[in-house]
Amino acid sequence: MSKELFRRELAAFQPYVPGKPIEEVKREFGLTRIEKLASNENQLGPSPLAVEAVRKAAETMNFYPESTAIDLKKELAEHLNKQTDFVVTPDHLVIGNGGEELLQVIAQTFINEGDEIVVPAPSFGIYNTTTGLMGAKTVSVPFKGTEFDLEGMVAAVTDKTKLFYLCSPNNPTGNILKLEQLEYLLQNVPEDVVLILDEAYYEFATNLSPDYPQSLSLLAKRKNLLILRTFSKVCGIAGVRIGYVISNLHIAAEMNKVKLTFNANRLAQEAARGALKDTDHMEKTLALNALSLKLMTEAFDRLGLAYIPSSANFIFVDCKKHSKDVFDQLLRKGVIIRPGYFWGWDNWIRVSTGTEEQTKFFIEKLEEVL
Amino acid sequence: MSKELFRRELAAFQPYVPGKPIEEVKREFGLTRIEKLASNENQLGPSPLAVEAVRKAAETMNFYPESTAIDLKKELAEHLNKQTDFVVTPDHLVIGNGGEELLQVIAQTFINEGDEIVVPAPSFGIYNTTTGLMGAKTVSVPFKGTEFDLEGMVAAVTDKTKLFYLCSPNNPTGNILKLEQLEYLLQNVPEDVVLILDEAYYEFATNLSPDYPQSLSLLAKRKNLLILRTFSKVCGIAGVRIGYVISNLHIAAEMNKVKLTFNANRLAQEAARGALKDTDHMEKTLALNALSLKLMTEAFDRLGLAYIPSSANFIFVDCKKHSKDVFDQLLRKGVIIRPGYFWGWDNWIRVSTGTEEQTKFFIEKLEEVL
Repeated sequence: MSKELFRRELAAFQPYVPGKPIEEVKREFGLTRIEKLASNENQLGPSPLAVEAVRKAAETMNFYPESTAIDLKKELAEHLNKQTDFVVTPDHLVIGNGGEELLQVIAQTFINEGDEIVVPAPSFGIYNTTTGLMGAKTVSVPFKGTEFDLEGMVAAVTDKTKLFYLCSPNNPTGNILKLEQLEYLLQNVPEDVVLILDEAYYEFATNLSPDYPQSLSLLAKRKNLLILRTFSKVCGIAGVRIGYVISNLHIAAEMNKVKLTFNANRLAQEAARGALKDTDHMEKTLALNALSLKLMTEAFDRLGLAYIPSSANFIFVDCKKHSKDVFDQLLRKGVIIRPGYFWGWDNWIRVSTGTEEQTKFFIEKLEEVL
Repeated sequence: MSKELFRRELAAFQPYVPGKPIEEVKREFGLTRIEKLASNENQLGPSPLAVEAVRKAAETMNFYPESTAIDLKKELAEHLNKQTDFVVTPDHLVIGNGGEELLQVIAQTFINEGDEIVVPAPSFGIYNTTTGLMGAKTVSVPFKGTEFDLEGMVAAVTDKTKLFYLCSPNNPTGNILKLEQLEYLLQNVPEDVVLILDEAYYEFATNLSPDYPQSLSLLAKRKNLLILRTFSKVCGIAGVRIGYVISNLHIAAEMNKVKLTFNANRLAQEAARGALKDTDHMEKTLALNALSLKLMTEAFDRLGLAYIPSSANFIFVDCKKHSKDVFDQLLRKGVIIRPGYFWGWDNWIRVSTGTEEQTKFFIEKLEEVL
């Protein structure tokens, strides 16, 4: 009757597997040029104003971060208040060590053993790992073709459902939820189920898709709604880790109690404040992203490959052969992408956008492989 | 029969309360000079080599961190292998977003609802919050006078005890556990209870106390032992958040599965690598710390105040009046300290060491207050 050493949930726990680091691939295959288009990073580089802010703040690294991130929250609230009529205050915000940590805080704030979550499939794996660790059961609802099965997701809700996850644009498929789809969910998912709307790629979608809804206004209509966004993608500061949640006050207050005291580091807070002011970098990023997507979709059309039109900084494409082979062969040629078999979409790959040069390099290598 | 919205554990959850930020105090009291000696920060500043590393790495902030922190782990293992004969490899290490996050990962790795932890009191409050959130019951064992009650702690172990916490030097008291005390625990705490030894102030203790044990060698004697250390204190990089756990392989492997993929940010990893090489900054920090402690203890002796001899970068002193009053009055004079009533030690305060100038300023203001 010896006691179990580890938490019971660990027995079946499968951690998230990130993309391969460039240095590792270089060593393994003796390559000099590697283009990694696997992690939806901003290939233009970080916001120069964020870089400047970090360099300045580095000298004060001996002091702990401000645990409430109050300066960042004030500036962020001001920034968000340009988007809709819903008035965001600092108290509506939770700042985290990247979106990944905020997903963990969500799980820690809501989940007890035996609770259920509803997620679309394919989608971002961290929804399952963070809630699974807290003892939740994941109810996955597969796409219908290349679209969310919203009726199926609504039908998957039970008395035990605590959290209902949506990702828009969805990772890895790149498609968005339109306003009428979100309103359908608001009407059909019970009020006591918390809706999590992950908008990590918000800025790209706003730029690419005229019908991408401005979701903040929904906070006035639904009490239990969380919107998740990040500085990692469009601002190009994934490396320093900073993201945020916007929600109604009763939820933000609990999440702020649960989050670690010093979760968002000092340099990340300053980098985010710098990036918020950097409209020039944001415009350049959005323009480059649109160009890269255009080059890719033209090539896919020429090659006769089906793809899902993307509203993000990546695209999901059907290579008509197993993605493990496509991944391996591209790797040997110096391109890292994300194979779809991770999500059970065996012949699809997810490719992040890049610079014009990187995009052309990827297209050239893909043609060689197919 | 409405469902509870939040995780049950939140109803009684009391988050950790950090020290007041300097800017807030300045605004509140209209002060120009504030010396914050409340958070055990390094007042010499961050390691210059860490600052240099951050400034260099800032340009690559658009890329996610290396999720295994392999370069840092290799250099850290090499550094630790100078301390004892126990051979540390990268696989013995877990890197975290500061010690605080590692304490959370520990709770997530071991605790199920109903498990118990044993902690000394007073000690670092994050042991209780992180495990409490996971459903553990805290069994606190008060100090006997100004010393750990080791027999009492051993007697507090039950069949449900999962984790047994020790902090050496102890926060807030500053005293250490000697080798014979650790060996007593190794013999008397059952093997299936995991011993957590928090050595956040390791370098200060090694410098100040000839009888501070080199705990790494104990990993060979006890399977279920975790040692926690940090770059926040002696290296002066608390703001960028980076700490580490050294343990046997079976525990490090599970913790590395549980930790978030990108928990330790890119700039923190580089800052830590820089700081590891910075022996000059470390020596200066240790010398300044010893000087500040000497100035403080001489003043306490002169003022007839009892204190616990410290092996850390802070000291715990009995002001013979309520620490809430001492805190408030010092605050108005521009000095922030940590009042002992937080820990139920009503007349004591914890003061961090500082520069010579800061230390003298604190002593002057303390004399005025008493």
